[in-house]
Amino acid sequence: MQPNTLEDLKELIDAGSAVIPATLVVRNGSLINVASEEIYKADVAVYKKWIVAIGDVSAYVGKDTQVLDATGKYIAPGLIDGHLHIECSKLSITSFAKAVVPCGTTSIISGLDETLSVSGLEGLREVLDEMQASPLKVFWGAPFKTPYTFPESNIAFNMTPEVHHQVQAWPECFGVWELVREFVQEKEPNALGAVLEARKNRLPVFGCAPMARGRNLNAYLCSGVRLDHESYDHEEAMEKIRNGMFMLVRESSVTHFLNENLRTVTEVNPNVARRISFCTDDVAAGDVLAKGHVDNLVRMAIAMGVPPIRAIQMASINSAEAYRIDHLVGSVTPGKLADILIVDSPESFRVERVIANGQYVAENRRLIIPLTAPARGPSLHGSMKLKPVTEEEMTIRTPLEGKVRVLAMEVKAGAPFVRKGREAVLAVEKSGAVLPDPAQDVLYVSVVERFGKTNNRPVAFCSGWKLKAGAMATSNSPDDNNIVCIGASPADMAVAVNHLASHGGGQVVVRDGKVTDFLPLPVGGIVADVEPEEMAVLEQRSDDAARALGCDLPYPFLYMSFLLVTAIPDYAMTDLGAIDCIGLKVVNPLLGKA
Amino acid sequence: MQPNTLEDLKELIDAGSAVIPATLVVRNGSLINVASEEIYKADVAVYKKWIVAIGDVSAYVGKDTQVLDATGKYIAPGLIDGHLHIECSKLSITSFAKAVVPCGTTSIISGLDETLSVSGLEGLREVLDEMQASPLKVFWGAPFKTPYTFPESNIAFNMTPEVHHQVQAWPECFGVWELVREFVQEKEPNALGAVLEARKNRLPVFGCAPMARGRNLNAYLCSGVRLDHESYDHEEAMEKIRNGMFMLVRESSVTHFLNENLRTVTEVNPNVARRISFCTDDVAAGDVLAKGHVDNLVRMAIAMGVPPIRAIQMASINSAEAYRIDHLVGSVTPGKLADILIVDSPESFRVERVIANGQYVAENRRLIIPLTAPARGPSLHGSMKLKPVTEEEMTIRTPLEGKVRVLAMEVKAGAPFVRKGREAVLAVEKSGAVLPDPAQDVLYVSVVERFGKTNNRPVAFCSGWKLKAGAMATSNSPDDNNIVCIGASPADMAVAVNHLASHGGGQVVVRDGKVTDFLPLPVGGIVADVEPEEMAVLEQRSDDAARALGCDLPYPFLYMSFLLVTAIPDYAMTDLGAIDCIGLKVVNPLLGKA
Repeated sequence: MQPNTLEDLKELIDAGSAVIPATLVVRNGSLINVASEEIYKADVAVYKKWIVAIGDVSAYVGKDTQVLDATGKYIAPGLIDGHLHIECSKLSITSFAKAVVPCGTTSIISGLDETLSVSGLEGLREVLDEMQASPLKVFWGAPFKTPYTFPESNIAFNMTPEVHHQVQAWPECFGVWELVREFVQEKEPNALGAVLEARKNRLPVFGCAPMARGRNLNAYLCSGVRLDHESYDHEEAMEKIRNGMFMLVRESSVTHFLNENLRTVTEVNPNVARRISFCTDDVAAGDVLAKGHVDNLVRMAIAMGVPPIRAIQMASINSAEAYRIDHLVGSVTPGKLADILIVDSPESFRVERVIANGQYVAENRRLIIPLTAPARGPSLHGSMKLKPVTEEEMTIRTPLEGKVRVLAMEVKAGAPFVRKGREAVLAVEKSGAVLPDPAQDVLYVSVVERFGKTNNRPVAFCSGWKLKAGAMATSNSPDDNNIVCIGASPADMAVAVNHLASHGGGQVVVRDGKVTDFLPLPVGGIVADVEPEEMAVLEQRSDDAARALGCDLPYPFLYMSFLLVTAIPDYAMTDLGAIDCIGLKVVNPLLGKA
Repeated sequence: MQPNTLEDLKELIDAGSAVIPATLVVRNGSLINVASEEIYKADVAVYKKWIVAIGDVSAYVGKDTQVLDATGKYIAPGLIDGHLHIECSKLSITSFAKAVVPCGTTSIISGLDETLSVSGLEGLREVLDEMQASPLKVFWGAPFKTPYTFPESNIAFNMTPEVHHQVQAWPECFGVWELVREFVQEKEPNALGAVLEARKNRLPVFGCAPMARGRNLNAYLCSGVRLDHESYDHEEAMEKIRNGMFMLVRESSVTHFLNENLRTVTEVNPNVARRISFCTDDVAAGDVLAKGHVDNLVRMAIAMGVPPIRAIQMASINSAEAYRIDHLVGSVTPGKLADILIVDSPESFRVERVIANGQYVAENRRLIIPLTAPARGPSLHGSMKLKPVTEEEMTIRTPLEGKVRVLAMEVKAGAPFVRKGREAVLAVEKSGAVLPDPAQDVLYVSVVERFGKTNNRPVAFCSGWKLKAGAMATSNSPDDNNIVCIGASPADMAVAVNHLASHGGGQVVVRDGKVTDFLPLPVGGIVADVEPEEMAVLEQRSDDAARALGCDLPYPFLYMSFLLVTAIPDYAMTDLGAIDCIGLKVVNPLLGKA
């Protein structure tokens, strides 16, 4: 992202001294200078991908220089999303760029861990190359390990310290991604191996420590982790900041922490603003289209009383410093990549025009350059390698008779993703089957290993989805992206899973043996190369189909897909079976005779 | 500086979770938390070299835990000197640590460029190893090139891109040191090669751009340089900050920029404080003993109205972030190196006790641990390889007759180090000699190449030293550390230079063929393993001897030694001859017939 040959470097220096004219200048605007925390009249000169001058740039204008007039407008740095799983949007990077770049997001930090999990280094390499052609920069952190699950589930590709040794040398690698706290607590050798490798490579380690306090937090910090992106309340955020962490405030499509977390600034101490930046973690296309992306977080922060320039710092230079990429992005200053926004005002912060990598790419929230996804290679197509599932495999049986007590992992709309254990009593059929009981809202859940490694397909119980019949399944299910399926009927579950298996992956809803909706995700079984607007429609249709079965959760598929995350308490589901996330072990969902 | 084996990392994590008790705790004090910008009651727990907990640390105390009581006192992070040539103090690292660690300085950023210039990688390696045993951490930046001179003079070791490729891989290397702006302007391949190598190694580039403004500054920033440590006024500092640089405020023994530079904060915008940190660049032992070191800069900033906690941030976390060493030092937070000060109050900031690397090392401004310099190897002893100098070699002759016009490089006490050209008329003797004329304050100056490479020993004219007789010479003369000698008598100049040659280097004053004072600098001809108090006495004696010859400059030897720096306008002196620092070329000091 910086010139890396002597000739290119000399050329940029010549552009800096105005020996070569600028390729683009922005004139007559006021610069929101996030480095000096000031707003003042200043022009900006760009040469190719880089900013070469701010202030009076008249000496830099040549006859071929493109001039953007910003009279009455303000100039801000391109925005940074500090922690994002692109794949959760079900959009490929190319498609995702179409959604967020017009909102002003020009950089994201991402582990691409889902891509890696389903398609290995080959698929990852494809996506990293794809990103070169996109106006959206992805600062890649190498996932600390894959899978994130504890105990370890089965996926296509395992990230190990040996792989870290290889990939941390890549220039695209900017750190270690999302070291989940529990792995430090357990002193898990692969996780610690990634940390040690990062030290050799002078790379920071990015964290993931929801609800970590006190000694748990201290032990975690002793691993050298630099930042965290999720605090459930502002006291937790404040403790992390006091203990030296850079704090990312997360505002995703589902979890809304911004207002609570920013009480650190508005109520505790305005000067901790410096240590705070923004991330969205997981966002749905429809949500971005409706509300915006990081720009929306800036507006939210301003609305709750954060001074505009500090809110804009949180979305730019603060992230860049937290991730040690401030030599490349995060401010409109010479030598940095030319990611520049023209906005209406610092207070209302509507992004009107976007320059990314020195190219004028968007206006009025629309991309104005052509952008097409590349052809996909074999590693990203053909990741569904499972044997077909049978109804019998989707059925839980017991030698017990009469009634049995079962453990159902239960979600509630008010407490995003957290699964509590709920005990229920179910009847045992003569065949020994313990079937779902929609009347009690006790359903089946299965995770079907899909990479042809184990063909595991355990079944357990869940609650909260309220399906009266049928089944729903998805192969976009972080962190593993095995197929997760919830159903009131084992037969419909088998149809759902097998549909995904034979159609390259996606989201599906089945009733009475028939597919009522299918959202194809052909790239790795997790994302699609469709326009964001189209994805918003498809998702709505998919959710509607699930609701037609009785589900009233705000995000039926997101709640389901997050069942695989063992880092979320108290229970999870992987291809190993039902997981006790506190004891970190597989548990039997049949508890005994009632 | 962090655990780098799996076992060590696990042990530190166990200490973080209080499974292993702390080795040391500081109790009952108030923590100056530079991360959250707050001051509150908090204890600190340390395990071996690292901080493992802040706040309530009672769970960390074991039966063998050393307890320091800080009732009524304040706890601050160890201070950082952001840019320092240790060698300018004439003290070895071990001796320098004795001077500054009791003042609270626990980290310095240094290029050790003078050590490198006189003794190559072998001597450098010795010094880097020496530092391991010292309580003072040196974050080494690999000098962008040696020598810094333009045109290139002769020294013992030339730093090249090839050497950068080798040394940037060393874990002790934290960046590229002091990329002098003019080398970017000239697109000098060695300098740019070091920059390109740093990109591969993910290392920042530290700057040196006094008086750079406008297009000169922009071109310089296009090289990717991260920070600068010298601005002559606050407008210059402000321009650099606005353009994205981290700004170090320099307050050396000779140049006093702090009060002027900090007008950025007290007059322009208090919030630029975040981008500002401190350095001393060059300090004399006596000055540190009299006034303190970085702690004094903190007090000066507070005295001019900077809020105490922000002044302390400038001396700690701000430097650490500027240099990307904030994962190691700069704050009292878990996982960082345990560099901890106990001070009387944030406002008066008297350092009473010092913990460095987890060890209680100083109290009441005295080191309380034994500290001895290591035995020195051949590369650091025996760097004086010149052939003896003759009186004839120290004499300027001309075929012209009568009177000649000469160019004398002239210093003034009010304008530190800057040399203007002064034209004078001198008589030509019958022999053709154009001798010094003390009556006009026109003296000889020679730089004698001392590494046995060229045996260059040009002579030119200087003014400002006012010697009535005799000569003075030193082999501690950055950046080259060739011998520089000023004299009213060619014979005494030869005696002075030859005394240094035969005594392993140092500073000398000669009158009438006799040495009147000699300060030995046996380590590399540039530093000595003496107590700081002794060095202060020796320096005073040396200056007094120069003053006895008539010199009234505040620092006779410093003014002389800086004559070799071609980065200081308008004229300099190297082993190539008199240098025009603007035109960057050798010039003849004989201008023609008068």
